[in-house]
Amino acid sequence: MTAESSWGLPTTGRIVAITMGEPSGIGGELTIKSWLRRSDVSLPFVAIDNAERLAIIADNLSTDIPIKIVSSPSEALNVFGTALPVIDLPLAVLSQPGELRTDNAPAVIASIETAVSLIQSGEISGVVTNPIHKNNLYGAGFKYPGHTEFLADLAGSEVEPVMMLACDGLRTVPITTHLSLRDAIRSLSVDRIISQSRITADALRLDFGLHAPRLAIAGLNPHASEDGSMGNEEQSIIRPAIEALQAAGMNVSGPYPPDTLFSAAMRTTYDVAICMYHDQALIPIKTLDFSGGVNVTLGLPFVRTSPDHGTALDIAGKGTADETSMIAALRMAADITRERVTTAA
Amino acid sequence: MTAESSWGLPTTGRIVAITMGEPSGIGGELTIKSWLRRSDVSLPFVAIDNAERLAIIADNLSTDIPIKIVSSPSEALNVFGTALPVIDLPLAVLSQPGELRTDNAPAVIASIETAVSLIQSGEISGVVTNPIHKNNLYGAGFKYPGHTEFLADLAGSEVEPVMMLACDGLRTVPITTHLSLRDAIRSLSVDRIISQSRITADALRLDFGLHAPRLAIAGLNPHASEDGSMGNEEQSIIRPAIEALQAAGMNVSGPYPPDTLFSAAMRTTYDVAICMYHDQALIPIKTLDFSGGVNVTLGLPFVRTSPDHGTALDIAGKGTADETSMIAALRMAADITRERVTTAA
Repeated sequence: MTAESSWGLPTTGRIVAITMGEPSGIGGELTIKSWLRRSDVSLPFVAIDNAERLAIIADNLSTDIPIKIVSSPSEALNVFGTALPVIDLPLAVLSQPGELRTDNAPAVIASIETAVSLIQSGEISGVVTNPIHKNNLYGAGFKYPGHTEFLADLAGSEVEPVMMLACDGLRTVPITTHLSLRDAIRSLSVDRIISQSRITADALRLDFGLHAPRLAIAGLNPHASEDGSMGNEEQSIIRPAIEALQAAGMNVSGPYPPDTLFSAAMRTTYDVAICMYHDQALIPIKTLDFSGGVNVTLGLPFVRTSPDHGTALDIAGKGTADETSMIAALRMAADITRERVTTAA
Repeated sequence: MTAESSWGLPTTGRIVAITMGEPSGIGGELTIKSWLRRSDVSLPFVAIDNAERLAIIADNLSTDIPIKIVSSPSEALNVFGTALPVIDLPLAVLSQPGELRTDNAPAVIASIETAVSLIQSGEISGVVTNPIHKNNLYGAGFKYPGHTEFLADLAGSEVEPVMMLACDGLRTVPITTHLSLRDAIRSLSVDRIISQSRITADALRLDFGLHAPRLAIAGLNPHASEDGSMGNEEQSIIRPAIEALQAAGMNVSGPYPPDTLFSAAMRTTYDVAICMYHDQALIPIKTLDFSGGVNVTLGLPFVRTSPDHGTALDIAGKGTADETSMIAALRMAADITRERVTTAA
């Protein structure tokens, strides 16, 4: 981040936004539980949400949490210590747990748009997004494959953003995300591995303070194909990408046999594993730490993290939602904000 | 196992064999270290190996382990408490750590054949195989894709054996093993999922004492395709297989999103995860427990386990090989033997 960017960090105080996400899901409960654990989060936050529904959720949780409608993040900064600050958004219909309503989709979208415009105006330093329900948004005309692509479009970003998953001791980046496994294999290319690896390395340097990040590139096939005896993508695609990245001076190695790459011993040898498909990246993270994983979007001009789970409509309203991943997402947003400030200073 | 099978268990004492495996790899070191930890293994074993090379390896490990050449497993039973019993096999050339020799391949093969014939004659109750180096055997005319297929052929087994991986708290079965990821997807079929699931369920019942084993079937695509929005194998192949298995009265469920199936909470809900490709099954096992995983072959008429790693030529002769997986393989062979005896009784 350069100081002169229109996406520069706020100069007065630092605060992040939590978006509403799907209002019939567990998002509101996570926001409230995160405020209750605000001493675990090292940065204040403001909810961009519907205050009435949050109050009802808080009631159901039997917490007498004070909720205060604020008009700006700077006002939110002042109240955060004593109340959950909310930039209030209207809902077409008061949301009910587990009941998707297409007429509430515009509010879900407005929450994300508001967050990005507050980042652009320098009033907040990043956004932590509650899970959305894509199919419900599609019904209301939402035209993006997902949250991340929408954020990238709002940011006017020219690069395709990269999804990174992180838990304690492991970061992974899937080269492709929501494609069938067949299409994911077809979509692999030297260029794609190079571009995603570069964005990842840049972000680890700028946002995570790693001066020479070590990238371990996974193979696609069992045992990384054993020199071509099971598949040829390692030779035709992955190795050439690794060689190009190495030639550019990056600390890149591989292709590694995918099954051993995530073992405890191997995990200590790299800062991020670049993975060839969604589940190669997601299985080790969720196997190790189902509730504490964080999704970080790299390559955006601003900080964006999110919990590593969905809307959980089935448990919405029951008070049993686990806020661990949301807390981890808030902490990571705080860490990245701090790192960007240091880098820009 | 029925008592009248030609593969019946020995009636006098119980003992398993450890094969030589690739003699330039870490196998000999694992055999010796396992004997040193024989109190951790609940069944005696006999090495089918070259006694001279084992003595040299023991020397290099600075252990004054007694090695005794025996002519039969029953003799081995008598010496196991005080010496490592070895059914001696000649090598063409004394093996050197890390140096593959095609002329020693016949001894590798003879060790496996000897083990199977001792099982068939009722002298040993199963085999724990040290890792082989397939390419080196191919050079000597070995015509099987791997260890397991060779054992199945020696057994005259009509069913294709199933590979199961097990570590503490997780068992997984890959529907296909050493195929490229593209070919693994192409090889998926309703019949294959059904047959492998049946063999797995039978083995969990007979060999692991689970009366109504719970099988969780993984999806192939991210999020198990979210009702077909990312790939169609869940609908066209996996669901029909699950329905057929359920109709046959089996405790089978799925298809589950592959990334969450191996989380700590999910792992408690099933006895085995049936996985759609090699790394889907292997990544969670090796991520959780790199050194303690065991490979069990299901569907053979006899007990066969092996450590879940390769020949490790790079560290052979250094004394640093980790015997954890071999110990776990020996213990599992002992457990299965006990279970089969109970079942047959």
